[in-house]
Amino acid sequence: MTQRGTLGVAVIGTGRMGADHVRRISEVISGARVAAVVDVDAERAKNVAAGVEGCTAYTEPAAAMAAADVDAVLIASPGPAHESALLAAFERDLPVLCEKPLTPDAASALRVLEAEQRLGHRRVQVGFMRRYDAEYVKLKALLDSGQLGRPLMLHNRHRNASSPPGFTDAMLINDSVVHEMDVTRWLLGQEITAVTVLRPTPSDVAPEGLADPQFVVLETDGGALVDVEIFVNCGFGYQVQAEAVCERGTARIGDGHAMVTNAAGRWGGTIAQDFVERFEEAYDREVQAWVDATRRGEVTGPGVWDGYAAAAVCEAGVRAQTEGRRTEVELIERPALYR
Amino acid sequence: MTQRGTLGVAVIGTGRMGADHVRRISEVISGARVAAVVDVDAERAKNVAAGVEGCTAYTEPAAAMAAADVDAVLIASPGPAHESALLAAFERDLPVLCEKPLTPDAASALRVLEAEQRLGHRRVQVGFMRRYDAEYVKLKALLDSGQLGRPLMLHNRHRNASSPPGFTDAMLINDSVVHEMDVTRWLLGQEITAVTVLRPTPSDVAPEGLADPQFVVLETDGGALVDVEIFVNCGFGYQVQAEAVCERGTARIGDGHAMVTNAAGRWGGTIAQDFVERFEEAYDREVQAWVDATRRGEVTGPGVWDGYAAAAVCEAGVRAQTEGRRTEVELIERPALYR
Amino acid sequence: MTQRGTLGVAVIGTGRMGADHVRRISEVISGARVAAVVDVDAERAKNVAAGVEGCTAYTEPAAAMAAADVDAVLIASPGPAHESALLAAFERDLPVLCEKPLTPDAASALRVLEAEQRLGHRRVQVGFMRRYDAEYVKLKALLDSGQLGRPLMLHNRHRNASSPPGFTDAMLINDSVVHEMDVTRWLLGQEITAVTVLRPTPSDVAPEGLADPQFVVLETDGGALVDVEIFVNCGFGYQVQAEAVCERGTARIGDGHAMVTNAAGRWGGTIAQDFVERFEEAYDREVQAWVDATRRGEVTGPGVWDGYAAAAVCEAGVRAQTEGRRTEVELIERPALYR
Amino acid sequence: MTQRGTLGVAVIGTGRMGADHVRRISEVISGARVAAVVDVDAERAKNVAAGVEGCTAYTEPAAAMAAADVDAVLIASPGPAHESALLAAFERDLPVLCEKPLTPDAASALRVLEAEQRLGHRRVQVGFMRRYDAEYVKLKALLDSGQLGRPLMLHNRHRNASSPPGFTDAMLINDSVVHEMDVTRWLLGQEITAVTVLRPTPSDVAPEGLADPQFVVLETDGGALVDVEIFVNCGFGYQVQAEAVCERGTARIGDGHAMVTNAAGRWGGTIAQDFVERFEEAYDREVQAWVDATRRGEVTGPGVWDGYAAAAVCEAGVRAQTEGRRTEVELIERPALYR
Repeated sequence: MTQRGTLGVAVIGTGRMGADHVRRISEVISGARVAAVVDVDAERAKNVAAGVEGCTAYTEPAAAMAAADVDAVLIASPGPAHESALLAAFERDLPVLCEKPLTPDAASALRVLEAEQRLGHRRVQVGFMRRYDAEYVKLKALLDSGQLGRPLMLHNRHRNASSPPGFTDAMLINDSVVHEMDVTRWLLGQEITAVTVLRPTPSDVAPEGLADPQFVVLETDGGALVDVEIFVNCGFGYQVQAEAVCERGTARIGDGHAMVTNAAGRWGGTIAQDFVERFEEAYDREVQAWVDATRRGEVTGPGVWDGYAAAAVCEAGVRAQTEGRRTEVELIERPALYR
Repeated sequence: MTQRGTLGVAVIGTGRMGADHVRRISEVISGARVAAVVDVDAERAKNVAAGVEGCTAYTEPAAAMAAADVDAVLIASPGPAHESALLAAFERDLPVLCEKPLTPDAASALRVLEAEQRLGHRRVQVGFMRRYDAEYVKLKALLDSGQLGRPLMLHNRHRNASSPPGFTDAMLINDSVVHEMDVTRWLLGQEITAVTVLRPTPSDVAPEGLADPQFVVLETDGGALVDVEIFVNCGFGYQVQAEAVCERGTARIGDGHAMVTNAAGRWGGTIAQDFVERFEEAYDREVQAWVDATRRGEVTGPGVWDGYAAAAVCEAGVRAQTEGRRTEVELIERPALYR
Repeated sequence: MTQRGTLGVAVIGTGRMGADHVRRISEVISGARVAAVVDVDAERAKNVAAGVEGCTAYTEPAAAMAAADVDAVLIASPGPAHESALLAAFERDLPVLCEKPLTPDAASALRVLEAEQRLGHRRVQVGFMRRYDAEYVKLKALLDSGQLGRPLMLHNRHRNASSPPGFTDAMLINDSVVHEMDVTRWLLGQEITAVTVLRPTPSDVAPEGLADPQFVVLETDGGALVDVEIFVNCGFGYQVQAEAVCERGTARIGDGHAMVTNAAGRWGGTIAQDFVERFEEAYDREVQAWVDATRRGEVTGPGVWDGYAAAAVCEAGVRAQTEGRRTEVELIERPALYR
Repeated sequence: MTQRGTLGVAVIGTGRMGADHVRRISEVISGARVAAVVDVDAERAKNVAAGVEGCTAYTEPAAAMAAADVDAVLIASPGPAHESALLAAFERDLPVLCEKPLTPDAASALRVLEAEQRLGHRRVQVGFMRRYDAEYVKLKALLDSGQLGRPLMLHNRHRNASSPPGFTDAMLINDSVVHEMDVTRWLLGQEITAVTVLRPTPSDVAPEGLADPQFVVLETDGGALVDVEIFVNCGFGYQVQAEAVCERGTARIGDGHAMVTNAAGRWGGTIAQDFVERFEEAYDREVQAWVDATRRGEVTGPGVWDGYAAAAVCEAGVRAQTEGRRTEVELIERPALYR
């Protein structure tokens, strides 16, 4: 570990996803820094490294992993490059966050599985990020609580505004429905035992050669039935919804608002119980905004004038309350510094 | 600045709010660390400092501000202690994040205003954290866009499940409605010119001596009318809602879901346009969870087994799709390491 | 009463409102018929009467009320004509449904009040139709149940897309807010004791001479505080909302969906408990549509072909269920009669 | 036709459904009356007839249909009795509203189909009442408008709180999913070509011998894919939902509020454009309530006191508006007649 326990991360791959992770670790994440970036394109690696203090560029994953200030590896290279990078990380026993897919097929994934077993302990987290989405986390907690009884069915909608050029039927499964496959396994704690894919007549909006939408039915070893509408040219936006149907109620997420349950004769959701729950993220953003501005040598956000104005309005408010009548607020003229 | 530009922060006051900011800066915020904590209660300061690497405890704000590794100050002490701490920070020209209220009354706030003007530049951000709430930010952006025309009225609901012991009528204004006062000024970009406070018969649930709920009407120099229901013993939870009524539509936040607008014959909200917008925070949480677990020497989240299972299900899925029939998934037995 | 107890109604006034009531009684209402219509404009009265079987036209309310087949009176003439029509009905002791306002001012209303007392029994229902709106009825029932405790405040929004030509500030009160005034009295079972009217700077969209929107505060003899946003040029549609704030929860109607309550840590609504509750109105509409079509000599709606197709699909469904496989549906070719 | 064109209806079957139709025609429907009731149970028929003015009891459908004042027939007897009743009606060329199912199987339905063709014109409306539900009607109108493009999929949820004793797997299809089968045919204007039924592990709450829930997939000759969750022991209530997925958007009904669409980057619904649209049903209920009370010799609803109070509050309101200050309302003491 580097000084003060900050985690030095080597980011493998500096394409769209990798570059975004570099930004995230540098600007959002607490307790980590990007110590190395790796890309077969040496120029691109150098450019990304240049923007990060204390970051070295490499073209070989193994070389980056050998660096003294690299404590952990984030793999964001194309899928076919994952296996060798994972094996290299295993050799140095480094913790890994590996973007999905783990590897492009089951055979190669099995090789990684065996390698990690030879290592004797788990080292890899795979990038199924829906498990970290606040709504999915709430749904998982509700299912685990047993409040609604056993889950029987899971209805999913997965919609994209439009598919990128070259998107194929197989990518519908491998790149899109793979998320529902993982979500199913995680939410239900069950393995998937069979898959059926049904297709309506494709939308006229679907690109030539892509049968879009499709409807996928998954069966699990726990006897649950899972259906997935996958529609990657729906036109209106990106929408991911899931509804768990349980023995004593249903719960639905992804409607652009909080989880809604049907149970005991009522539909609805929970109300936050205190300001921490309601405004926790606002506090985080507030302090982060202050730190960021301060590091840039700037002052942003509400200032002393706002504090003074609030005090003056409060004084008028308390007077209005006490005297039971409309009370005017008195403010000095706004000084130049605050205009 | 300390090494690699990390901001060293002195946190003044280690009560509930201060301790929470210490935790936030240490575990959530990127680019800052707690270099010093200050409390008149030396024991409490020491205890808090002990939990943070490289953090020194002080009993005097000025002493902390004099430390070499202190770059900025976060004031979270009780309101009456703010003025002297602010003036001390001005002497060293340090950036300040000052919890609300700036100071307890308009006269003292005015003294701080004058001091900062003598300093010649702005150094203080005041802790009106609603300005950083995602929903308020969206509402502000919508109002600023001019899409709905000029705001004419702002309806606010501010509800707490119950008030803490000793809560008074004046605190309804100074501690609660002060948020709507700041929100009004910020959302509308107007100063408040008059206040009226109305009271229905108090709720039987309200504690002796507190007239709860109350209804506050604010007028602004831009001619807007603002009403605030303040109800601190509503019983059912914490709820903060705002509806802006504009010339060509209204927009409402705080119903436990996204902002809803009324305009052009339709009610509703926006749909995310891509996965970044929808799952950005999930990515942040995923990477933070990985960094935190790794720093603790643990592995959590989806692992290689999950990556393998997803690959196997995808293969079955593509086969099902191609062959047009139900296809069984083949998985090896789950190895001991992943049980 | 006429044969089979059908109520013979004289409709006074055949303007927009009166003509609509004539249509309603003739085509929607069970157990009544329009026996007479009255209008100072003899031509208009004759035209309306011509469209209704057994209906006579008059120019004098008293003349219509004297007719043998008139059992009851519906007054839909302009407000200033109400008093004399009401007094004429009292003379014949006829039941009256009087469109709002009862009369245009308190002094004339008082005269009617005294006249009905001299009559010795109540004969008049006034047309405050919100008391018959399904959502208001639900809200009233919830308040009356005492579940949420005593109502403390009532927030109202009353919005029209645009105001008709010639609309004045006084009409904002007399024609629009009068609905909230009645709703307040009815929902709370309390009399209104004081009124305050506040005005923001008018919308630029408001017509010359109309200060729109306005904000009305009502106080009641039960200590409740009621606020009404009246905005008759909001542009986006017609919207009537009410939120009752009670000691143990709130309930809100008018958002374009069912009543939503906040109570006991949850927001939400009730779920219908059986198909009667959910589809009662569909049954009513179905049978009314059949009666109407039959009286016109037509056949509409689902027919024998639909019944046959449903039977065939059901048979395939039960076979699919029993045999556990996809089953094709067999239909004869669609006969010419059903194309 | 009877006097004034009122339709004389013979109701065949006076069980739950039949008795409810007798009540509906007598009290809700405009322009019809129950002229005859028929039941194999002579006693039951007599009892029902006794409650309706001018209604005769029969035990034979044909006898009732021969009566001079019978203009039309409503068949609500058990399914196996429908065929002979329909054929009897055809002999007299009477219009029929036949409760679902038309007949219990496709073969008998086909015989009815052929008989109606021999008659040479359509005479029968079948009781698929969902086609008259306001939300389904809106969804149908939206699909027919072509605004969202061609429908590709239709997701349905059909949930009952609990199933009646003796409910079987076959009844899941014949009594429950039959509604979605008809809705599919009607909404899409397409015939169903194949059915598949899938089953998760049944809920522990399901009664012995019933596999509940089940998941039904329908295919249509227009290439649409339709899925139906049928869950008749969901515990929490009765819920019928449908979401049409079209080429340019989706539309969903049955969430306990108005239809919600996803299209062009926004979710939401329409706002009523005038008070007629918003309060039409309130007007209908108001006048029906007045007619019903008047026929009973009663006065209900708002009365003269309410009219007077509204006038007095309006006067105070206009004064408050004009003079710009809080104005007290003056009311006389409430007279005994109105207490």
